Amino acid sequence: MDNFQFYSPTEFIFGRDTETKAGEMVKKYGGTKVLIHYGSGSAVKSGLLDCVKASLDASGIAYTELGGVQPNPRDTLIYKGIELCRNEGVDFILSVGGGSCIDSSKAIALGVPYNGDFWDFYGTGKEVEKALPIGTVLTIAAAGSEGSGASVVTKEEGSLKRDVGSDLLRPRFSILDPVLTCSLPAYQTACGATDIMAHVFERYFTNTREVEITDRLCEAVLLTMIKETPRAIAQPDNYEARANIMWAGTVAHNDIVGVGRSQDWNSHAIEHELSALYDCAHGAGLAVIMPAWMEFVYKHDVMRFAQMAVRVWGCHMNFEFPDETALEGIACFRSFLHSIGMPINFEQLGAREEDIHKLVKKMGIGDGKTGGFVHLTSQDIATIYRIAANAGL
Amino acid sequence: MDNFQFYSPTEFIFGRDTETKAGEMVKKYGGTKVLIHYGSGSAVKSGLLDCVKASLDASGIAYTELGGVQPNPRDTLIYKGIELCRNEGVDFILSVGGGSCIDSSKAIALGVPYNGDFWDFYGTGKEVEKALPIGTVLTIAAAGSEGSGASVVTKEEGSLKRDVGSDLLRPRFSILDPVLTCSLPAYQTACGATDIMAHVFERYFTNTREVEITDRLCEAVLLTMIKETPRAIAQPDNYEARANIMWAGTVAHNDIVGVGRSQDWNSHAIEHELSALYDCAHGAGLAVIMPAWMEFVYKHDVMRFAQMAVRVWGCHMNFEFPDETALEGIACFRSFLHSIGMPINFEQLGAREEDIHKLVKKMGIGDGKTGGFVHLTSQDIATIYRIAANAGL
Repeated sequence: MDNFQFYSPTEFIFGRDTETKAGEMVKKYGGTKVLIHYGSGSAVKSGLLDCVKASLDASGIAYTELGGVQPNPRDTLIYKGIELCRNEGVDFILSVGGGSCIDSSKAIALGVPYNGDFWDFYGTGKEVEKALPIGTVLTIAAAGSEGSGASVVTKEEGSLKRDVGSDLLRPRFSILDPVLTCSLPAYQTACGATDIMAHVFERYFTNTREVEITDRLCEAVLLTMIKETPRAIAQPDNYEARANIMWAGTVAHNDIVGVGRSQDWNSHAIEHELSALYDCAHGAGLAVIMPAWMEFVYKHDVMRFAQMAVRVWGCHMNFEFPDETALEGIACFRSFLHSIGMPINFEQLGAREEDIHKLVKKMGIGDGKTGGFVHLTSQDIATIYRIAANAGL
Repeated sequence: MDNFQFYSPTEFIFGRDTETKAGEMVKKYGGTKVLIHYGSGSAVKSGLLDCVKASLDASGIAYTELGGVQPNPRDTLIYKGIELCRNEGVDFILSVGGGSCIDSSKAIALGVPYNGDFWDFYGTGKEVEKALPIGTVLTIAAAGSEGSGASVVTKEEGSLKRDVGSDLLRPRFSILDPVLTCSLPAYQTACGATDIMAHVFERYFTNTREVEITDRLCEAVLLTMIKETPRAIAQPDNYEARANIMWAGTVAHNDIVGVGRSQDWNSHAIEHELSALYDCAHGAGLAVIMPAWMEFVYKHDVMRFAQMAVRVWGCHMNFEFPDETALEGIACFRSFLHSIGMPINFEQLGAREEDIHKLVKKMGIGDGKTGGFVHLTSQDIATIYRIAANAGL
């Protein structure tokens, strides 16, 4: 096991009607003037925004608001948010929405006290030294941003998707009411589930030996998702299925399932180019990329893929030909994704094989290598895109 | 799933040589005058205490010290610690030891700013409103106190063992170096492992339905302990086994495996009377009590015990007679405890069947009931003690 630091100080408030506690929580963490940041009209239409405002009113907390966050959140709205916060003297950002909304909130939070362009921090490794405190009211189980210090945003000019990470960006509190996710359409539910499973797999495939505790915790989240996702799709109002998925999404990404080991994250990097170029859902892009990545790299550690096959997908171990078991596990993953309505190749995603050269170039690896499990060259990544382009069941 | 709050703000620093960071961490969390609180001479003899002092010196932090914490930590030393802290103007408590040492530190931490007897908080539900900040350097994987807000101490007069819990008692940081646990004798290693597994089982047996995610996380910790404990006992210096056990001990008790569900905790309460009366190790007491408790209550939810048998102990499900599978799982647990050198009945523990009446009386339930999974009467508890007294393989 590698040395590690684990720090997840966010206070999670989970369950029915917990959004009514938003005001109380902002007050607890010192906010006096809040920016409510949200996405599309659904938070307005559902009455959630009114509920949150009533809760802030009841706690005597002033607020201003900025809606319009899109999936794959854009820098343009973030600049607006930073200016608004400075003009209005905002000292706390309350994100009401899914991962995109939280990531946009984090960008605003670090941008407000920074004397320069917030984009300086994205994709550069530049350290965040100051940020406004954030709280979230989560409406989509997927990104895990409610419990992480990470933020991914897209620069419109050039469609660049880049990320930043800092403990200062971890939300002070996150309110998780599974009821808010019951209105999600099946497709978005499945995209979220895929993202959650991908967050686990990025950590599961490691070169660090003998990290049984995190292996088992990873498998715990995956087994839960395999049980609960089809239930949530078949019965959108099933509170228990939604609750298990929502908490699994947080556990999958606050790094409790990833400490003490090298992690990979190539599938995320490879996917980001797809959602940046085609503006597809991140989860859908992952459904196409991740099994293809697995097929390309599995020979690097056949027994690890066999372990996934047996422990996660319930395959029988082929002791004579472990490769068969490894491949069977990958096939199970792709079948599962298909069964929950995810695309499994470029055509189904709306991507084009002739763009592969452009996608690889935009990743900007050049002659270098990337990834924690298997170090991939630009050529390797092109091959993975090609496998993904033509995949079938 | 029940509504819940999850809050685990402790910063964990895990791995080899991390004890050299003690000074840096105390400084980060605002300590200027530290009480180093420790147990027996082993922290002195091993050089750990010198290492911690050197680290504090290097960070320019003043300190005083108080050793002598015993297993089942006593109120008498705590009173001394409180007085010492007040006289010396201590503003941070650094615990260097195992769970007893941390629990003693927590008692001192809440006692210093309290204008009265620290014991007022124990077993009474009285809310802690203020406490000195705590940090820990952990030397035994067992109690999980390094990541919890709980403290259990013993009042010498009357041998009363009682507990308190508060988010204010959660350590600001905990330093976990598995190397420090390599010198533990096999018996203590096994006691710690038993305590860790018991912390999970207290949460696993619940009346809340459909909490798959926490069920699976519980099983992840248990499967890890079943794999790693025999390795650590056979090869005391096996770093990887020690590391997996140490982190499993923290995960088992910061409540990540217990949220969203009712929990039981009867086995702990029943055991506490044993360790209070006989001064035996808490883990050893649990090894005797917990399987007996399981045998007494399993009919309350046969399928949950069958799930444990299949998922944790790898038993084959008997679909015709699920009771058989449930009982097989319990037998596997007791056999495992025996295999790692734990006592499995009163004689092996050094307890006496003729004391059962006294033990039950000291629990103080009277005509009431206790426990979250099955509500037990005093008579039920006497029966469990009798099963424990006479258990065999």
